[in-house]
Amino acid sequence: MASEAIRAGVVGATGYTGAELVQLLSEHPHFELSFISSRKNAGKNFSHLYPRFQDEIDQQLEHPDRLSEVDLELLFLAVPHTVSMNIVPQLDLDSTQVVDLAADYRFPSVSDFNDTYEIKHADPDNNEQAVYGLTEHNREQIAGAALVANPGCYATAALLPLVTLLKDNLVTGPFFIDAKSGISGAGRKPSATTTFVARNEDILPYKVGVHRHQAEIAAHLPATDVEPLFVPHVIPVDRGIEAALYCSPRSSVDFAQIETSLKDFCERHRLLRYRSEPAGIKAVANTPYCDITAIKGGEGRLVVFSCLDNLLKGAASQALQNANLVFGFESSTGLLRG
Amino acid sequence: MASEAIRAGVVGATGYTGAELVQLLSEHPHFELSFISSRKNAGKNFSHLYPRFQDEIDQQLEHPDRLSEVDLELLFLAVPHTVSMNIVPQLDLDSTQVVDLAADYRFPSVSDFNDTYEIKHADPDNNEQAVYGLTEHNREQIAGAALVANPGCYATAALLPLVTLLKDNLVTGPFFIDAKSGISGAGRKPSATTTFVARNEDILPYKVGVHRHQAEIAAHLPATDVEPLFVPHVIPVDRGIEAALYCSPRSSVDFAQIETSLKDFCERHRLLRYRSEPAGIKAVANTPYCDITAIKGGEGRLVVFSCLDNLLKGAASQALQNANLVFGFESSTGLLRG
Amino acid sequence: MASEAIRAGVVGATGYTGAELVQLLSEHPHFELSFISSRKNAGKNFSHLYPRFQDEIDQQLEHPDRLSEVDLELLFLAVPHTVSMNIVPQLDLDSTQVVDLAADYRFPSVSDFNDTYEIKHADPDNNEQAVYGLTEHNREQIAGAALVANPGCYATAALLPLVTLLKDNLVTGPFFIDAKSGISGAGRKPSATTTFVARNEDILPYKVGVHRHQAEIAAHLPATDVEPLFVPHVIPVDRGIEAALYCSPRSSVDFAQIETSLKDFCERHRLLRYRSEPAGIKAVANTPYCDITAIKGGEGRLVVFSCLDNLLKGAASQALQNANLVFGFESSTGLLRG
Amino acid sequence: MASEAIRAGVVGATGYTGAELVQLLSEHPHFELSFISSRKNAGKNFSHLYPRFQDEIDQQLEHPDRLSEVDLELLFLAVPHTVSMNIVPQLDLDSTQVVDLAADYRFPSVSDFNDTYEIKHADPDNNEQAVYGLTEHNREQIAGAALVANPGCYATAALLPLVTLLKDNLVTGPFFIDAKSGISGAGRKPSATTTFVARNEDILPYKVGVHRHQAEIAAHLPATDVEPLFVPHVIPVDRGIEAALYCSPRSSVDFAQIETSLKDFCERHRLLRYRSEPAGIKAVANTPYCDITAIKGGEGRLVVFSCLDNLLKGAASQALQNANLVFGFESSTGLLRG
Repeated sequence: MASEAIRAGVVGATGYTGAELVQLLSEHPHFELSFISSRKNAGKNFSHLYPRFQDEIDQQLEHPDRLSEVDLELLFLAVPHTVSMNIVPQLDLDSTQVVDLAADYRFPSVSDFNDTYEIKHADPDNNEQAVYGLTEHNREQIAGAALVANPGCYATAALLPLVTLLKDNLVTGPFFIDAKSGISGAGRKPSATTTFVARNEDILPYKVGVHRHQAEIAAHLPATDVEPLFVPHVIPVDRGIEAALYCSPRSSVDFAQIETSLKDFCERHRLLRYRSEPAGIKAVANTPYCDITAIKGGEGRLVVFSCLDNLLKGAASQALQNANLVFGFESSTGLLRG
Repeated sequence: MASEAIRAGVVGATGYTGAELVQLLSEHPHFELSFISSRKNAGKNFSHLYPRFQDEIDQQLEHPDRLSEVDLELLFLAVPHTVSMNIVPQLDLDSTQVVDLAADYRFPSVSDFNDTYEIKHADPDNNEQAVYGLTEHNREQIAGAALVANPGCYATAALLPLVTLLKDNLVTGPFFIDAKSGISGAGRKPSATTTFVARNEDILPYKVGVHRHQAEIAAHLPATDVEPLFVPHVIPVDRGIEAALYCSPRSSVDFAQIETSLKDFCERHRLLRYRSEPAGIKAVANTPYCDITAIKGGEGRLVVFSCLDNLLKGAASQALQNANLVFGFESSTGLLRG
Repeated sequence: MASEAIRAGVVGATGYTGAELVQLLSEHPHFELSFISSRKNAGKNFSHLYPRFQDEIDQQLEHPDRLSEVDLELLFLAVPHTVSMNIVPQLDLDSTQVVDLAADYRFPSVSDFNDTYEIKHADPDNNEQAVYGLTEHNREQIAGAALVANPGCYATAALLPLVTLLKDNLVTGPFFIDAKSGISGAGRKPSATTTFVARNEDILPYKVGVHRHQAEIAAHLPATDVEPLFVPHVIPVDRGIEAALYCSPRSSVDFAQIETSLKDFCERHRLLRYRSEPAGIKAVANTPYCDITAIKGGEGRLVVFSCLDNLLKGAASQALQNANLVFGFESSTGLLRG
Repeated sequence: MASEAIRAGVVGATGYTGAELVQLLSEHPHFELSFISSRKNAGKNFSHLYPRFQDEIDQQLEHPDRLSEVDLELLFLAVPHTVSMNIVPQLDLDSTQVVDLAADYRFPSVSDFNDTYEIKHADPDNNEQAVYGLTEHNREQIAGAALVANPGCYATAALLPLVTLLKDNLVTGPFFIDAKSGISGAGRKPSATTTFVARNEDILPYKVGVHRHQAEIAAHLPATDVEPLFVPHVIPVDRGIEAALYCSPRSSVDFAQIETSLKDFCERHRLLRYRSEPAGIKAVANTPYCDITAIKGGEGRLVVFSCLDNLLKGAASQALQNANLVFGFESSTGLLRG
């Protein structure tokens, strides 16, 4: 690592997304992993919690209170929702660029946040300057941001193609989003609904129409009067999201226009891949890609598939894309093989 | 077993659905398992192929050619599609009642069958008298049928609630059916797409808009000009189907009417269960039930969940329901615990 | 149910083994499910916790404190270890026969129990009269028992063949038991080691040489100076145990004698099955059987496989076998299909 | 890639191990992936078969007959057993160094090979000069080898610790090896025993005492009169092997000596990790490591755990270690993160 490496930190480094960030940062050509913290596991080595990294990432976890003692240029907050809005106000955003993986700064309107998370936002001032880090749609704003709100995993899967189609004025509702997620989406904390025996051999729709990502998706659509019905499911896999977006082509729009719009979008961005046939989540798990496919139904019916790894493109690797942009690097820096 | 037991047979007894039929028939109070056949495994015992039934179902598998030598009152055909239409013409349907689990007699119109299965139907005469065995919607016709065409697994899941809502004139399109099936749905024959490594840790949409059950569903809707877009997925579980049906309430219809329609339907039929919240496929796997739930989206958006075991309510147990009706028994006879 | 049905109860009816007992009892020809309790879920219906039993087992869960108010002839204690030794002293064992599924009464020597569970036994008096419910080896003592200590799941798998071979004086050590268990063996309470993401795609040896079933196995061997090394693993399946027992034939003993000993043992008992080739846990999951196979290695080397369902033959169905014996029924009553 | 990159090829590039080699070589600092072939998929792109590598490894697959037309310095044979012994004689081993992942050259004695694989060896001459590529035990011989026989996956897991303990004269038999492997170990070709439904929710011992790796292990032990009983199992995971080796310390040897022997061995080699507690296969899956742990049983009883990824340390990454040694690089070159 050259002496000019950018000093980076991760608060919440032992949750699933935090741990992915640690792995990605440990291999990044420009960022240096200077600080990793965990309230619960302070003092232990990272590889004690993730034994596969023994001899590779044996860095010690600090207590998050030590954050004020370290000098970081880049900070990732991989903390539970409503935690980061109490951390950010204590930071100097002029000297430390922040990418927040919690939901706290994702809503342009503080009152929408308050309604959705049923809590009063603790940091409305910084919320105003936060940029929504949906990388491929907001590159320019992200490049100059002091505070990036990294999108939710489901929201990323839904918005990447949907914003494109709505911007190009190609589709009309009603919109239905049938999404399926691996179990890591529920986080690392054990609960009765995340045990092996509970989840194995099952698929379960949950929080139908009331999941918080429904509001997040609606808040970032480039159209009014469009609110999709968002139906998440949990499936017995570790990681990955497949979202099937159902809607209708506008009258006089043919399928080729829709396909062209999405293909062009994917061609312009290194970490999006258009596929003529869906390849499932196995093709995106453990990668930074989002795979997109449109398939024509009969008259007035369309489905668009969007697949990504919930912990990577839906969280950690998109966070790194955003950090890359903030520091003027190519957004895919440190994310590609070879 | 009393001396007046009805002599029943299963052709194709070692496929997944055939094997389920063998199990169900071995416990039925009125049907006696008199003949089981397998072209490939003739001469072996059933429990040789399904070792968990050692000491319980050790009956010998016959070659299907021996069918002409036995005197059966009830015959289940658990054979691949296009095979049963070559068996049925050789049977005397006056003395042997047939429940066909293949697709051959499922289409009222022979030309729809020909188009869908890309083959010329070999037995159009019997196709005319065949009754579609969607038990809870066609009880009366099934009761007097000599030949019952047992519905496809996906079609059963989709049609049970959808026919109800359309008959009651409560919903309007576009209709989207997002279905997820366990891997036993692909049958017992190994292929590159059914290996453990191929399917584990994946969800994959396939045959989007061109699956044969799309045509089967359309053929049995009580409305013209309604063709849902049917999107099947395969998920890494042994058995079970969850179908999410997306559509819109008709204007002036409120959600309570929709819920009442489905609740009433479920209350009238012993093997349907209405649930206010979906319980996933774990609640129906290895049971003869179909579980139905409707959830209101925002304005103009509705989702109905339908869950069943693809090998039971989607195949073998529905076949037994139909056989029960043909012989004048309660349709749930031999299917409930205790 | 005839009027003379035996009134049975289950304390701890919502844990995995308790729930299996409820299912088995709900179908038993002589026992009537009169009382089911759960401290945490008192007031709810059983099917609220296990939705697959909606419309089938909708019985209400009582608080365990109500136990003193009900008149039961048979009581199953499916409670955590160290709980039952505080319940049993309050019962009248003359009028209520007890089958305890906890470990509390499994050790002939109270001091062995104290050492193994690191607690002082609260009920040494009843421990003296308790009978170890390893059904196929202890039928006669169980038949007259007021208090049956149901064996642990691993111990059942290991002891069924091992006691036979040692009684027949056919094998010698060192003995190694390599056991693999489904995740339900860890109980229903969520923990960091039972989440889907933790257990999926893994096999993990744990508590090597220090698992409590090591002491339980040693306590019930019909030989002194034999202590196997017991190595349990957890594998990513819901249920089932496979135990591979490694040892050596005594000099002058040939393999045929060993096979004959185990075959004869299995033939004498309806719920044991000898197999010439192991069939895995799929052949025993959801069944009351234990499958046993011996395979000859080279000179001085032998392996015996023992497979069962940890929740059934390793817990609930063996408990029911024991209850059947206590009340004078065939031990397999209510456990076989058809 | 600098102009002096070493031109490497993979025959059999679409099988599971071949595909891992392609991935590893595509990132290697000194080897250049010049030729990949597949008899069945010639003409297609690699990423057509492994869609996750779209936009990353889109190299075209050649027909293996084109091998004679290309000039390669390094060739990996990832072909089925008995195929490579017909390819090697056609190669010029002076100009092309070969690492064979098939079993053909693994046996020092041709007659042992003939007995084990029930075929007459087609290339006994080259078999004489072949070096067994158990990297950490045979570094020096591998460094100068023209033909390296890459060990089997189970054999690698068993031999790495066992050879060490036998060389140090610390343990004595009988030896039992209880090994559990993910399903990719059976190869990519579909069969009735590798389908999802067959393998899901099961653990199955197979080829007990007669698996070919039993003979391979025996052939490479540094002691006569030691033949372990090798008992492989298949478990429902994609990849990974855990082997539990059971044996006894020699009299007068204490456990500390055994632990020290294995610890020292692991410390001398970058891709071996000694662990005081076993961490399961999740800690080695998708890594090039072998993790080793010894645990003391009671008197005369010892277990050593050895865990690795069957497709990597058990095949492709060990093959690359060997190629690295052949060309004078550190054996871990191209295999470590970062």
